[in-house]
Amino acid sequence: MSEKITPKLITSEWFNTDSPLSIQALKGKVVVVHAFQMLCPGCVSHGIPQASVVNDAFSKDQVQVIGLHSVFEHHQVMTPDALRVFLHEYKVTFPVAVDQPSLDKVLPKTMDSWQLQGTPSLIVFDKFGQCRLKHFGRLSDLQVGTIVGKLAAEENNPVLADDTATTSIKSSHSTPNCNDDACSI
Amino acid sequence: MSEKITPKLITSEWFNTDSPLSIQALKGKVVVVHAFQMLCPGCVSHGIPQASVVNDAFSKDQVQVIGLHSVFEHHQVMTPDALRVFLHEYKVTFPVAVDQPSLDKVLPKTMDSWQLQGTPSLIVFDKFGQCRLKHFGRLSDLQVGTIVGKLAAEENNPVLADDTATTSIKSSHSTPNCNDDACSI
Amino acid sequence: MSEKITPKLITSEWFNTDSPLSIQALKGKVVVVHAFQMLCPGCVSHGIPQASVVNDAFSKDQVQVIGLHSVFEHHQVMTPDALRVFLHEYKVTFPVAVDQPSLDKVLPKTMDSWQLQGTPSLIVFDKFGQCRLKHFGRLSDLQVGTIVGKLAAEENNPVLADDTATTSIKSSHSTPNCNDDACSI
Amino acid sequence: MSEKITPKLITSEWFNTDSPLSIQALKGKVVVVHAFQMLCPGCVSHGIPQASVVNDAFSKDQVQVIGLHSVFEHHQVMTPDALRVFLHEYKVTFPVAVDQPSLDKVLPKTMDSWQLQGTPSLIVFDKFGQCRLKHFGRLSDLQVGTIVGKLAAEENNPVLADDTATTSIKSSHSTPNCNDDACSI
Repeated sequence: MSEKITPKLITSEWFNTDSPLSIQALKGKVVVVHAFQMLCPGCVSHGIPQASVVNDAFSKDQVQVIGLHSVFEHHQVMTPDALRVFLHEYKVTFPVAVDQPSLDKVLPKTMDSWQLQGTPSLIVFDKFGQCRLKHFGRLSDLQVGTIVGKLAAEENNPVLADDTATTSIKSSHSTPNCNDDACSI
Repeated sequence: MSEKITPKLITSEWFNTDSPLSIQALKGKVVVVHAFQMLCPGCVSHGIPQASVVNDAFSKDQVQVIGLHSVFEHHQVMTPDALRVFLHEYKVTFPVAVDQPSLDKVLPKTMDSWQLQGTPSLIVFDKFGQCRLKHFGRLSDLQVGTIVGKLAAEENNPVLADDTATTSIKSSHSTPNCNDDACSI
Repeated sequence: MSEKITPKLITSEWFNTDSPLSIQALKGKVVVVHAFQMLCPGCVSHGIPQASVVNDAFSKDQVQVIGLHSVFEHHQVMTPDALRVFLHEYKVTFPVAVDQPSLDKVLPKTMDSWQLQGTPSLIVFDKFGQCRLKHFGRLSDLQVGTIVGKLAAEENNPVLADDTATTSIKSSHSTPNCNDDACSI
Repeated sequence: MSEKITPKLITSEWFNTDSPLSIQALKGKVVVVHAFQMLCPGCVSHGIPQASVVNDAFSKDQVQVIGLHSVFEHHQVMTPDALRVFLHEYKVTFPVAVDQPSLDKVLPKTMDSWQLQGTPSLIVFDKFGQCRLKHFGRLSDLQVGTIVGKLAAEENNPVLADDTATTSIKSSHSTPNCNDDACSI
């Protein structure tokens, strides 16, 4: 299934990096974006540790992991200041961006643009900046290893858009809701 | 080793209960107090789930579990409003008190009075309001079951004070510090 | 519910002990019998590690853990020789008895006498040799800690028989069958 | 590092398949061989479940998982009859071969030919029958996903032999020895 995601992060602040990162400028590397909220239980127990493992497992020349703090509920307590403490206490070392809040929408701008369904979401771009995976909910380490290993091994040509895999956990709630795995919009 | 802890909670707010609880008023029940901070990784991954399991395992006639939010660092982001969201998202259902902040000390009042070393700490009172366990750091479910099972089975007489067990993880840090297991003062 | 179990092990061989143990001779101690089969997945993943944790957690003056290899299926491959290798490879250090095979029944003699429903089963005797727990299937560490902590704290008088707790996983199979948790008769 | 492994299984018996498998005949598929012993704790707790997850995660058109029972110790109890029971109780569904015992050596023939260091070992062949990974000890699911995902995505040409990855846990024992992770020769 084709998935037209503009490989552009719209952010208001960055942690764990001297300067903002850009997916377009990272061409030549696989980019793994982990969208999360600091008070989303599934993000804390599963998504963040998995992103750290991916960050540790691959050479920085090959794979760039980016955290994206996409707050769509409880905005008043999941502030950048609270996020800074969270990243410190949980010893998150990869770059993390704050998804830019919208003036008129509940969803922050990157989340809205990418049409994410909730947190955690994993969005993977190939070396050519094409989105190859957009997944809401929990993926196993084997699944993440398989897609990243595949994309890291690709050498020559951009793949056709219809090679894109887009999978998701079905969300039956119309209001924000968290379970052990995920928080949905 | 004897441990003179006044069985008194000094609190500023309560969640998940219609009225404040008092250890003295709970005589006849074993009281298990889980002191935590919402951004302490060891509390979130181990302490809170364990307290929930204890809460589910015992009859409310026998054992009362109480959460105590004892913030000694990053006060500005671990506010009662943030705690309310945390308890909601993590589906914590047992009563939780906010340890009353001190006007002139970093440590909140109950934590200071009980001389806790950090979070998570588990403090267990017998049916007579005597402190029988004060532990900083991680305890296994088997250890918690053993002490609560023992105290829940006691029927008749207050034990002598020197039966009190006080154990702790050694803390070598003089400044606030968190590892996977705990945050120490 | 009352449970009349004769506190007698009928065995053919012992490992990890110089001489056979007897529940009657262990009066004054809580005796925790873990009945298992070496090719029962739930015993290997959960029961044996839990019995080892109980063995490590309590003083030998207070609690005696005993493994009981109660083979009721695949007798030809779960032999004492195979068990010896299993105990060595899995580094089991507490005493383990071979439940004595019957000449005319599928069930070994202790298992038959105690009317166990399968493996793993946990059978706990108090300091007076009374059976206080007979459980088929998985118990949490908190549950095991609670019962052992309670019995280890009992000092003076034998309890009445109707204090006995007998719990079990319902087994709907009439032929031997294993799932992740247990193998039933 | 180059690793010249003949892609040939020397076997005496097969389970879970109507006819013996051959790595050469599987050209076009990635072949994942999990070498194990049924009484090796690290194989049972980690290796076998991981092989099952790999077996479930990939299309049979792309990836073939094969278990290889390479007994190098306690031959008298880890017999094919015992293995049959083990595979049944642990619900292993992928094809499993018995590594052919040697008449004059402790090591079975495939293990000896491939110079494996112990169990569990993971040996991965690409679509052209070239060995691309030979690993003794535990690998994370992320690591296994990465190598299998990479090889499954390769389309056109055999890679050069020096692309082969060979990694191992260092073994300091000269006699057979098991720890939680592995049993070494």
